[in-house]
Order: sequence, then C-alpha cells, then structure tokens
Amino acid sequence: MTYQAYYLSPEGRINQNLSREEIKRAYDSKEGLLWIDISETTEEDGELLEQGLGLHHLAAEDCVSPLIHPPKIDDFGDYLFIVVHGINHTAETEIVETAELAIFIGSNFVVSNHNCPLYSVEAVKHLVTEDDRLMRRGADFLAYIIIDMLIDNVMPTIDRMSDVAEEIEEETIRNPQQPTLEAILKLKRSTLRIHRVMAPQREVMNRISRGGLPLIKQEALIYYRDVYDHLVRIEDLNQTIRDRADNALNTYLSSVANRQNEVMKTLAIVATIFMPLTLLAGIYGMNFENMPELKWSWGYFAVLGLMGIVVVGALWKFWASRWVTWGRRRVTRIRPFAVEPEKLIWYVGQLARLPHRRR
Amino acid sequence: MTYQAYYLSPEGRINQNLSREEIKRAYDSKEGLLWIDISETTEEDGELLEQGLGLHHLAAEDCVSPLIHPPKIDDFGDYLFIVVHGINHTAETEIVETAELAIFIGSNFVVSNHNCPLYSVEAVKHLVTEDDRLMRRGADFLAYIIIDMLIDNVMPTIDRMSDVAEEIEEETIRNPQQPTLEAILKLKRSTLRIHRVMAPQREVMNRISRGGLPLIKQEALIYYRDVYDHLVRIEDLNQTIRDRADNALNTYLSSVANRQNEVMKTLAIVATIFMPLTLLAGIYGMNFENMPELKWSWGYFAVLGLMGIVVVGALWKFWASRWVTWGRRRVTRIRPFAVEPEKLIWYVGQLARLPHRRR
Amino acid sequence: MTYQAYYLSPEGRINQNLSREEIKRAYDSKEGLLWIDISETTEEDGELLEQGLGLHHLAAEDCVSPLIHPPKIDDFGDYLFIVVHGINHTAETEIVETAELAIFIGSNFVVSNHNCPLYSVEAVKHLVTEDDRLMRRGADFLAYIIIDMLIDNVMPTIDRMSDVAEEIEEETIRNPQQPTLEAILKLKRSTLRIHRVMAPQREVMNRISRGGLPLIKQEALIYYRDVYDHLVRIEDLNQTIRDRADNALNTYLSSVANRQNEVMKTLAIVATIFMPLTLLAGIYGMNFENMPELKWSWGYFAVLGLMGIVVVGALWKFWASRWVTWGRRRVTRIRPFAVEPEKLIWYVGQLARLPHRRR
Amino acid sequence: MTYQAYYLSPEGRINQNLSREEIKRAYDSKEGLLWIDISETTEEDGELLEQGLGLHHLAAEDCVSPLIHPPKIDDFGDYLFIVVHGINHTAETEIVETAELAIFIGSNFVVSNHNCPLYSVEAVKHLVTEDDRLMRRGADFLAYIIIDMLIDNVMPTIDRMSDVAEEIEEETIRNPQQPTLEAILKLKRSTLRIHRVMAPQREVMNRISRGGLPLIKQEALIYYRDVYDHLVRIEDLNQTIRDRADNALNTYLSSVANRQNEVMKTLAIVATIFMPLTLLAGIYGMNFENMPELKWSWGYFAVLGLMGIVVVGALWKFWASRWVTWGRRRVTRIRPFAVEPEKLIWYVGQLARLPHRRR
Amino acid sequence: MTYQAYYLSPEGRINQNLSREEIKRAYDSKEGLLWIDISETTEEDGELLEQGLGLHHLAAEDCVSPLIHPPKIDDFGDYLFIVVHGINHTAETEIVETAELAIFIGSNFVVSNHNCPLYSVEAVKHLVTEDDRLMRRGADFLAYIIIDMLIDNVMPTIDRMSDVAEEIEEETIRNPQQPTLEAILKLKRSTLRIHRVMAPQREVMNRISRGGLPLIKQEALIYYRDVYDHLVRIEDLNQTIRDRADNALNTYLSSVANRQNEVMKTLAIVATIFMPLTLLAGIYGMNFENMPELKWSWGYFAVLGLMGIVVVGALWKFWASRWVTWGRRRVTRIRPFAVEPEKLIWYVGQLARLPHRRR
Repeated sequence: MTYQAYYLSPEGRINQNLSREEIKRAYDSKEGLLWIDISETTEEDGELLEQGLGLHHLAAEDCVSPLIHPPKIDDFGDYLFIVVHGINHTAETEIVETAELAIFIGSNFVVSNHNCPLYSVEAVKHLVTEDDRLMRRGADFLAYIIIDMLIDNVMPTIDRMSDVAEEIEEETIRNPQQPTLEAILKLKRSTLRIHRVMAPQREVMNRISRGGLPLIKQEALIYYRDVYDHLVRIEDLNQTIRDRADNALNTYLSSVANRQNEVMKTLAIVATIFMPLTLLAGIYGMNFENMPELKWSWGYFAVLGLMGIVVVGALWKFWASRWVTWGRRRVTRIRPFAVEPEKLIWYVGQLARLPHRRR
Repeated sequence: MTYQAYYLSPEGRINQNLSREEIKRAYDSKEGLLWIDISETTEEDGELLEQGLGLHHLAAEDCVSPLIHPPKIDDFGDYLFIVVHGINHTAETEIVETAELAIFIGSNFVVSNHNCPLYSVEAVKHLVTEDDRLMRRGADFLAYIIIDMLIDNVMPTIDRMSDVAEEIEEETIRNPQQPTLEAILKLKRSTLRIHRVMAPQREVMNRISRGGLPLIKQEALIYYRDVYDHLVRIEDLNQTIRDRADNALNTYLSSVANRQNEVMKTLAIVATIFMPLTLLAGIYGMNFENMPELKWSWGYFAVLGLMGIVVVGALWKFWASRWVTWGRRRVTRIRPFAVEPEKLIWYVGQLARLPHRRR
Repeated sequence: MTYQAYYLSPEGRINQNLSREEIKRAYDSKEGLLWIDISETTEEDGELLEQGLGLHHLAAEDCVSPLIHPPKIDDFGDYLFIVVHGINHTAETEIVETAELAIFIGSNFVVSNHNCPLYSVEAVKHLVTEDDRLMRRGADFLAYIIIDMLIDNVMPTIDRMSDVAEEIEEETIRNPQQPTLEAILKLKRSTLRIHRVMAPQREVMNRISRGGLPLIKQEALIYYRDVYDHLVRIEDLNQTIRDRADNALNTYLSSVANRQNEVMKTLAIVATIFMPLTLLAGIYGMNFENMPELKWSWGYFAVLGLMGIVVVGALWKFWASRWVTWGRRRVTRIRPFAVEPEKLIWYVGQLARLPHRRR
Repeated sequence: MTYQAYYLSPEGRINQNLSREEIKRAYDSKEGLLWIDISETTEEDGELLEQGLGLHHLAAEDCVSPLIHPPKIDDFGDYLFIVVHGINHTAETEIVETAELAIFIGSNFVVSNHNCPLYSVEAVKHLVTEDDRLMRRGADFLAYIIIDMLIDNVMPTIDRMSDVAEEIEEETIRNPQQPTLEAILKLKRSTLRIHRVMAPQREVMNRISRGGLPLIKQEALIYYRDVYDHLVRIEDLNQTIRDRADNALNTYLSSVANRQNEVMKTLAIVATIFMPLTLLAGIYGMNFENMPELKWSWGYFAVLGLMGIVVVGALWKFWASRWVTWGRRRVTRIRPFAVEPEKLIWYVGQLARLPHRRR
Repeated sequence: MTYQAYYLSPEGRINQNLSREEIKRAYDSKEGLLWIDISETTEEDGELLEQGLGLHHLAAEDCVSPLIHPPKIDDFGDYLFIVVHGINHTAETEIVETAELAIFIGSNFVVSNHNCPLYSVEAVKHLVTEDDRLMRRGADFLAYIIIDMLIDNVMPTIDRMSDVAEEIEEETIRNPQQPTLEAILKLKRSTLRIHRVMAPQREVMNRISRGGLPLIKQEALIYYRDVYDHLVRIEDLNQTIRDRADNALNTYLSSVANRQNEVMKTLAIVATIFMPLTLLAGIYGMNFENMPELKWSWGYFAVLGLMGIVVVGALWKFWASRWVTWGRRRVTRIRPFAVEPEKLIWYVGQLARLPHRRR
C-alpha cells in the first residue's frame, strides 16, 4: 500500500504526507481539496476507499483488481468514477504498455489510482507542490490536469512510432527481409492497440464535456473538450501511421514478388541460352559414322560461331522484350505527388512546459 | 425433467428440494424469493412454466426448444425474460461450446433455464446454500449473480485462447506448416464466434443498466453496469487475440512465400552454375577432327580450371546480389517497438472468490 | 389469375371458394375476417385489389409488377402494406430462389400476394381449414402466422447450406480442386444473398413490434417480436456459415500454394541431384588426348562411386533443411481448440408441428 | 440557352413555347402550373432563374456551373431545390455517364435543369403534351414524374451490367485473360459509381417522403416513397452485380494461379523424366578405357530398356500423386447449391408503359 | 509576428495597416467589422489574442501551438472558434501539405490565423481591398468567404490527383514497374489523407448550417450549406480517385503475376523442347560397341529429322493448349462498358472569378 495525499486547506495551505486520520478528517470537512494518489493498490487500499471514504465497493474493487478495465465514467451522485488509459513508455527499458488510471472526482476530493508508476501523475505531483494555484481551481480542474497529462504523454509514443514507420519505409525499399515484415506487423498491431485504447476515451471525454454532470463546473467543460480534441489528434496521427504501415506491407509483398520474378527470370534466361548450346554440342558429340560436318576443318569453329550467334540473339530478344534492362533507366513518367500532413513538430521539453502555459 | 428449487421464506429460511405444489404455493404467496433452476428442459417443464407459473408461452417455448436463441430481453410487465449466452468449457474433454441461459426475473421469483449443465449456475447454487444473504437482496440481485458468473466464466476460455495464440505465434516463426494455418483459422473463427455471442449481450446489459425497468431496483443498476463493463473487457481481449491471429496469418503466408523463394533460388543457382559447365564439357566432347585444344596436353586441366573460375565467379555474383548470404547476418536496423496491453493476470481460484468479495 | 379466399363470418363459420361478389360483400361488411391469397398475379388481380378492395394503386402495382421489391412496410391508415421475402427451396428440382410475399393487413381482411407458389402459404391454408381458432384471433395474428411460416421456412435452406459447408471443408482438406473453389464462392454468395434478404426484414419486424401501428393489437406485438428474434437467429447462423466459407477459401488458397511449393521443390531437388552428375559424366566424355583418369582401370567405378556420394549427400542436405520429410511426422504442438455454437438441431417434422404448439 | 416552357392555365389549357414575358406573367399569376425545362444552361439562364423568377443565386449558380453537385434538397421556403442524378445511357454510342438534374418545386411552378439532354425528361414532355391530367395534379406530382422517370431509367443500365456480368463469368471460366480482368475491374467500378450516385438520393427521397415539407402534399408522399423503394431495389440489384464481379475476380485470380501451377508441373515432369535419362546417356558416353558394359553386345538395348522403365515409373509416380490425371474425372462431391434472386425481368417496352399505368 | 488588420468603420471606410492600439479601439467599439489575419503565429500573437481581444487562452494556445488540431467548432458565447483544414499546393515547388486555418467569428470581428501562407487568404485580402461590399455583409459572411476559398482551393489538388491517376492507369497497362506501385500507394494514401481532412469538416459545416448559432445570421446559413455541398463533392471526387487507385493496384498485381507466368512458360517451353533433343543426342553419343544405328549412313540425318519432328510436335502441342498464341488475337467477347461521372471540368481562371459572381 503506497499512497500520497495532498490537502489544500480552506486557508490555502497545502499539506503533504497526511496520515489516514488526517485524510479522514480532511475528507469529512467537505472543505478545501484533498488529493490522494494510490499506486500498487492492495486490498487494504480497497478498504480505505470503501470504508474510509465511503466509495462504492464495485468501484473500489475495480481499483484493487489487477485486471484491465475499459475506459468509462460512472456517476455515483456524490462523486464520479472515471477510468482512463494512457501509454507508459519507459525509454530506458523499452517497455511500452497501456496503463490504467482510475480517478474519483468529488466536490472536495480527487482520488487517483494506478497499479504501475505513471510519469504523468508524478509530473502533476511536482506541479502541485510547486504552485498551489493548481489545486485552488477545484477538484474538476485538478482531475483535468491529471487526465490531460496522461493523454499528452501518449504523444512521445506516437512520435516514436512515427520514427519506426520511417525506418520501416526505408528498409522496405532498401533491403526487405522477414524481420522487416515482423516490424511492420508489430507497428500495425501497435496502432490498433492505441486505437482501441483511445477510441472509448473519446466517448468518456465527450460525455464530460457535453456538460450535465454537476461535479464538473461550466468553465471546466472547455478544458475537457480540449482533452477530447487531443484524443482526436492522437487518433488522426495514429491513423496516418497505420496507413504508412499498410503501404509498407504492400511494398514489402510486392518487392518479395519482384525478387521471385528476378530469380525466375535469371533461371529462364540461363536455361534459354544454355540448353540450345548444350544440344548443339551434344549433336556433334554423336558417334555416327557418317557425319560430314565433323570432317570439315573449320567445322568446330563454325559451331563455336553459331553458339555465339545464338547467345547474342537470345540476349537481344530478352532485351527487346524487357527481360533484361542493360543501359535502360527504370523510369516512371508519373509526376511526383503526395498529400502529407503538416510536419509533426514535437519539442522534447514541451510536455513539461505545457501546464505552466495553461495556468 | 430436472429442476431444483430454492425458496427463501419471508421468515428468512431457505428451503431446498421443493415439490411442484410447494413451488406453486411459494410463487403465489408473492413473498420471499423463489429460485427454480431447470436443466435438460422437456415439454413437461414448458407446461410448468406456462401453466404453473403463468409465463408467456412464447418465452416458455424458447426454453423448451433446442434451437439457439439470440441474447435478448423481453419485458412482459410482471416479469422480465432474458436470454444470455456463455461459454461452456469442460477442461477434461476439451469441448468448448456456447451455452444458452434463459432467466425469468419476477418480483419474488427467478427462473433459470439451460439445456446443458452450466458450471457457473452450480457455483451460484453452492453460494446460495452456504450464505443466505445472497437471496435476501432480492430477485434482481440473484439474477445478476447468475449472469455475472456466466459471463466471468468466459474469461478462462479467453485465457486459453491467449495461450493458443502464443503457441501459434511461436510455431509460425519456428516451423510453419499446414496444421499451423488450420490452427490460426480456427482461432480466428473462435474470436468471431465469441464476438458474435458477446456483442448482443452488451446491448441487453446496457438496456438493463440504463434503468427504466421497474423490476430492477435503482441500487442494482450499477451491478448490471459492471457486467456490461466485463463484456466490454472480454470484447477488448478477444479483439486483441484476433489481431494476433491476423498477424500470425500474415507471417505464415509470408514465410510460405519466403520458402518458395528459397526453393526457386536454389534451383536458379544450381542451374546457373551447372549449365555452363555442362556446355563446356559438351563442347570438348564433340567429335570434330580439327579441334586443336584437344591435342594440348594441358587442355583438360585448363578446362577444369576454367570450370573452377566459372563456379567461383557465379558464387561471388550471387553473394554480391544477396542471393546467398554466407557470413552475413540478416539484420534489421529497425528499433524494437510494440505497444501491448498490461499483462493479463488471471488467478486460478479467483472465480470462486469473487462473489464473496462482492457481498 | 389464381386466388383463393377464406372468410370467417361473424358467426364463426369459415367459407371457402368465394366468388368475387362474395369477397366484395365480406370486405364491405367490416366484420369477420377475410383472407385472400393471390398467386401468379395478373393485371386483372391488380384491378380487384385497386377497384374491388380500394387499395392504393402503387401497392397494387407492386403486387402485379414482376420486379423484385425490397422488404418494407407502408402504413396507408386503413391498412398496412408489408413486403417480406422468403427462400423458396424445392428439394426435388434443387431450385433455390428468394421469393417475395406481399401482405395487406386491414381491420377485417388479410390479402397475401405472391408470384410463385409458396410452401409456407400452403401450410397456413391447410391449418386454417383444419382449425378455425387461427382466424378467430384476428387479422394481425393471421398475418403473423403467414410471415412466421415464411421466415421459418428459411431454416431448411440454412441447414442445407450448413451441410454444404461441411462437404466443402472436407473436400478442401482432402482434395481441393477448381470446382471446390467455385462451390466456396457460390456458398459465400448465397450467405450474402440471404443476409441482404433478411437484414431489411429485421427493420420491418422491429417497426411492427415496437408498437404504434393501430392495426396490430398490443398482445400481438410479442409475436412479431418473436419473428424478429427468428430473423436474428437466421442471421447469426448465416454469418457462421459465411465464416466457414471464408476459412475454406483461405485453406483452399493455402493448399494451392502448398502444392505449387511441392512441385517447385521436386523440380529443384531433381535438378540439384542430376545436374552435377550429368556434368561429371560430361567431363569424362570429353575427348582430350591427355586425360589421365580415363586410363585408370578403376576410373569408371570411381566416378560411379562419386556420383553415389553426391546423391546421398544432396538427399541428406535436403532432409536436414526439411525439404524432404522421410520418416518425420508433420506435427503441430498447438493444442486443439475451437469455440463452436451449440449443435444446430433441426427436426424434419418440426415445421409442421410448430403452429399447433403455438395456438 | 435552350429552354422549353409549358403552362397549364387556370382554365386548364396547356400552352407551349412561351416567350420570356409570358413565363414571367404565368409565374407572377401564382395560378395554374408552369414547367420550364432548361438544358445546356448558360449564364443567361442563370439570370432568368435569379432575376426573372427570383430564385436564390446559389441555387441558380448550381444550375449554371458545369461542376457536379451531390444530390441534395434545399428548402428555400417558397420553393424547394432538389438535385438528383441519373444514368444517361445512349445505346448507339455506348457512352454511359451519370447525369445531373436540378429541379425547383414551387407552389405553381416546376423548373427542371440539366446540362445534357435527358431521355427521361423528353419522355415526360411527350406525356405532358399528350395528356393534360398529368399537370393538373400539381407541381409536386409533376416533379415526382420527372424524378421517377429519371430513376427508372437507371434500370436498363443495371440490366446491361447484369448481362456484362454474365459474359464475364462465362469468359472467366472458359478463357480468362488480362482483358477479362480489366472488364471485371471496370464492372466493379461501375457498381461503386452507381452506389455512390444512388445512396445519397435515398436520403433525399427519404426526407421528402417523411413529410414536413409544405410544398409536397400529403397524398404525394407515397409517390416519393415509391421512388425511394425503387432506389432501394436498384441498390440491391447493383449490390448483387458487385458480388458477382467479386466472385469473378476470385475465380480469375485462382485460375491464373492454377495455370501457373500447370506450367510448373509440366516443367517439373519434363525435368524429372529427362534428367535421369540424359545422365544415363552421359554415363555411357564417358571415354573410360575400362567400361565393361560398353562391350556387351546387348548393352545399348539394356540402357534403352532401362530408360523406358524410368519413364514408365516416373509417369506412374506422377499419376499416383495426382500430378497427372489421365483417365481420372475431376469430380467434386459437393452437391450443387446456390441461393439466387428471382429472375430479373425487364420488358423492353415497359418504361414507356409505366406512366400510363400510373395515372 | 506578422499580422494584417482591416477595419470597416461604421461610416463604411476600410482602413488597413492598423496599429495594435487602433485594433484594440476598433475591437472595443463593437461597431463596424474588424478582420485580423495572423500568420507565422508567435507567443506574442497569443498574448494579443488572449489579453488584447480577450479570447479564451485554450483557443489562443491552439493558434500558437505548432501542432495539428482536428477541425472543430467551439462556441464561446461571444465568439465562435473554428478550425478548418485546406490543402496548400505550391505548383512551383511541388510541396503539397494540409494547412490549418483557425478562425474566430465575433459580432464585429473576424480573426484568421495560420502558420503557413495560404493562397486563399491572400485572395480574400485582395477582394476585400478591391470591393468593400464584401465586409459590409458582416462577420459571418466574411468568415464564409475565407472558408469557402480555402475549401475551393482543394479542387486543383483533386484535379492534379485525377491527372496522376490517369498517368498511373496508362503506365500500369503499358509498363508496370516498382515505381508505378509506389506511385499508386502514394496516390491512395493521398486520397486517405484528404478524406481524413475533409470528413470532420463536413461535421463542422453541418453544425453551422443547421442554424442555432446566434452569431451566424439566418440568411448566411445557405452559404455555409453551400460549403458543406462543396465538401461532399470533393469527397465524392476523392472517392472516385481512390477507386481508380485500387483498380490500378489490382491491375498492377495481376500484370506482375502475368509476367511471372510468361517467364515460367518460356522456361517450361524451352526445357520441354530441348531436354528430349539433348537426350537424343546423348543417346547417340554413347560409346557402346554394338549400336547398329551409328553405322547407317543416313542415321545422323534421321536423328536430325526426328529432332525436327519433336520440335514441331511440341510447338503444336503448346499452341493447341494456348501456351503460345502465334497468329491468335487475344480477344475478349465482353462488350465494352463502364459508368463514369460526368467529365470533371475545371477552368484555370475559375477560382478567381467565383467570388465576383457570388456577390
């Protein structure tokens, strides 16, 4: 059981490291703003949520259970229960996973719950202790900041996928191999995964930003709408990456077919050139007693000449029917053309700067 | 005709093994909670339902008929008629089938009906006799427990399919054969089957949890919503397995094409090397009288040397154009990357523990 | 012009074989229940409908016109005009066609119209004359019986398609040929056809069973809902057959590719074995004067031995790289697994028994 | 500028060939019914529409502009502006194009506008001058007749496509070539084209037939509903043709693969038979001094006999493993089966007769 | 920071090149119409928007941020915030990008914002200075002109894509190569890109043209409806181009398969002809002492004759089984047929003329 609690008292002071009793007292005061962040949730945490804070046991169970829960919003009257998913991407270990975050929003409290450490929640903790204006705007705004950070944190992953797509495109043209195919299929599955994680969240954000939930103030709606727009943007970029993966797959398959074609052509050319020559040699290797050519003193050289003529003729035929392309440039007459999205620009430090600009 | 009846009398005692008359009396009392579970339904059961309990004959017919009925909810005013489907998976015999469960929910009774024995219904029976609090919460809650157990019982099947997907992925890369393809197609069809069984149930659960049905109490709605969420989760996991099957299919087809490519390459290389040599041997096997080379004492060895040069040259050419790859590692420069869901965690004993935790 | 009329007089007697005048009189009485079944509709019938019964000429035209009309429901106030489609399957001649049935439902009359003889309408005629309770329940119930029989009559076709799917699956594995492919494509097209015929009918039945049409009594709604459920079931079974056809197609294509692979492998193996041997023979067939091996007395046998070594070596190489599989069993390590629907059970005599059970 | 105007005066006389002043007077009288048909629209026509009749300039611009406009309905209060598309199919020149028709419906006027001559509009002109009852039923009915004729005129094209589909199916089985593929793809694109032209028109007709537009009388709604049904029917037939094209494509690709298989098999058989024989001949063509067989007087014939045995053995092996099929019938055990729509019946003269029947 | 401001004073004069103070004053006067166009937006511009004009900081941030934002409309009460996307196509440099335009519409002001120079905005600037009637119609009309120009500017790109599709179709038939495939895939991706850019804009335009936004006057709705229709038309043309790309892809793949077929056939023909001949030559090259044919004086010529017969026989066989097609025309019996849209007509100068015609 690991939890961290922040309490903005009605006097405007932020207290950290609250004990369970202080949490209970802050919660019951119905004043100020209490934020509890629980990670590595245990049964004990479930009890705190259920008995300590009086939250519904089904919601508490969703927090404790190690299973994946689809994004959703449940309105329990006194509080909202929201499940959202982000992408947890640890650059060092290259582990990329979808990560679940459960949030309770009440009139004077926010409870966030996650089973693995989330970079975005840590960032919000940092911001909260640095600048108390964040918690003064109320529970709905604090919840927005947490969700927004989680969603924005998907962008580096999208960015990374875009890089991978570029590497794949290059390798597909330069030197396609079985591992290239596997990378294409992995990338495609990643886009599917992100689509399935993000699409239901749009519904959740849409429901919040439409208004009608008394716990979300009117002026906060536009912020949740903004998260919705970010999700639409992520979906759009994700879709673009999926198109690139599909194209890479087509190019891969076509270049495999092309290479097989090359192999077959080589075989056919070799056979077409050498079989007649071997026959010719075979004919003059026959042991008939009466073979006048064998006695001609220039017969041997005539046969060699004939062989040369056959070779040149065959090669010319292949060249004419475009099986071989010596000295010909493989040109396309199609004018270059493609509609692309504006260059995706993503500053490394941007994530950290965004919340400052927002306040 | 096999039925088992449980009656929680208004005094709070649970009676088992009721006779038809006792059932009738309990039903007519409009008090307490009566649960009748009918399996291997016969025409006689249909009569009990229709005449004994006064249920609509179309619904009774759906119970008696051995045909499959799509998931649905019919509101007959005094009672609801719900059809849901589960997956019946007997580990010993490896028979995996979709199983239909029909449930009537009245104000003081629940009738469950199924044509094959269902593990989940047996589990509820066990719980009911062990702990009478279950039936005290009313007909809607009892029905929820039965449906929830049925739906949760799909998870081991999903889990099993996930294992099969892993075995398939491994075999597709290691040693793809025709049986691998059949396994892939079977797995894909299973995911389609589960999708088609689960998707309409979401609609049914959604309709119940939206409220508006007087027989389902307000506080029970969140429980049906929870079943809805489980169905969404099952769909999501199922979808992921389907993606894996699709990828495995692509990998399989590509590796079949690759192997064909290898075969063709071998053929082309063999022909390209041996045909010129055979021609050379054929030329010096000709019987012309005037063939000066034949008289040179080192002619034979010169020809053998020439043959060696042709072989080495051809092999170098093949190596340079990457047909053969001696000493070259097949490398991809693409950085490893994939977004995956959080590890699916499923405890063996979890199913049994869930209802306890819920009360 | 072929029509057959049944009139249940207010006194409860059923009259058959009414003349046009009797029909007119029964129709105008606004009492009892008049059922006119018109087959092989002519312009004359159109006149009867339009002038005799005062039905709208667009609806009458739809009956007369030999064109196909999509399933629909038109509410003309005094009467409903419904078009539904069934499958007419004559077992003897193996002709399977979609068949159109147009029905007018008024307060005291039902007019059914079809251009080809329908087995299901004949069955209802039989039932009506046998048991007058059928017509006593009113026009909406009579129309339900006719539509229900038509829809249920699709089941034998689905059943037949299921058999064909099984034959196809067997042949696809045992001995796939071009006719197998044609059968697969035909089956797939049949499922598409049935989907397109059944899907819009669900809409029509849904609209009726939702209530709001004054000509359909409240207690009849559940019966139309039942037809809707049958359509959902038919769609589900049809979908399952389509999946099987898709899988069979994949298996077919893969086994064609496999066979091509086998052919190529045979060719490559033959060439790889015989080309070096032929070269060897060719070398010792050269006519150089100075070829020391030719003079060795055991030279010939040494060459034969060398040839044997080459053959054995090549075969071992092919075996090691799994091109040939002597003595190896083609095994898959994937555990057998598939989710299937409950066995589709359909009794031959069931169709005839259904209406009896329903009354 | 080419326009033709018809005016049904309140006295019931039809005037043709009106001058611009007469049109203006008729239009301003707010009585009778004025129909103006404009083809090859110029800027001058745009002025007539905009200034003469006071229609909105955006609608007038849509008429003048040579661009394609999607089907739509705009309600300008005093008049409706409808854009519908038909198929213009000139049998002589084999030019098949989608053709746009713009219609204004006011209380006492109809303006139809099209940039290319439309057969269906000409037919309505003919009907109007022949029988004045057509215009007496009002502007909404006249507009219906024009639209209905336009939509019905799509049927011959569908009919033609159905014929082409049949030719394609035959040729795909008999003798598939590259032009066959091109015809398949062309046909498929045509069905897509028709789908995209017809689908949005359904929306337009649905909106009109739902009622709520004051300019369309209640009793005219069923007629627009009828046009809607025709569009559904066209879509259904179009869909069926598309399925046939898809099937033909599958059959084509499979038969191309089959033919390649045949080629490969021939090659493999030839190589497998002749390579061992050539080796045998090569062996006995070696020049070793000590080759005992060469001296046997029956050696030559023994080798010939051995060659014969090899040939027979190889052929038997090929026959046993089904590579060659002499004397074997290629049979399928699958029982013939396919669900097809009722035969599409279309009489050549029907189009002309339809409007008569309708009055 | 680059901005350009136009102010139509209440007296009807247009002032250009306003300073920040003049802008502020014009904005605060709540009279006249102020248009500010900001390009290459900086943080400073964000401040002007947020503090100078009091616009919401989330919207201002969307303008400043270099990220892509999906098309949307946000109603902030006093003003609307609209994001639309166009295609920026610079003919000289062949750079084709989607370009974002953000527009604020207030009662007396319009703010347009874009990060790259837009041809369409420049065109509106030109029109505004030339003819002051444009700004007199109000903010909603000015915004319409800007959006309409942006959307219409997509047409040349569509036109260009149509040309590229034609080139691709030609090259696919004439001489398909790997670059052709790449061009096909690029074109297809471009159509997907345009679809994804245009589809959400339809939603935005639909929402505006449905009415209900107080800042858009009733008489302006039809203009936004017109933009909606343009978007539908663009989608339709785009879809058509996508179909052509799909067909080209099919043709390409089929022609690659055909060429491989040709290669295989050549190989099989060569092998089938030469292998028997080589065997024949090999047989008579054997060194058996007792080979009677070798002594026949016409033996050699008989063998040559036999070889000729084998060649002729093989060629006849190939001709009969249609492997070779000398003297045969590759004919299809399918009658030519295709439904095509009306010729897309686009005048070079049209774009410039459109707004004049509109006023």
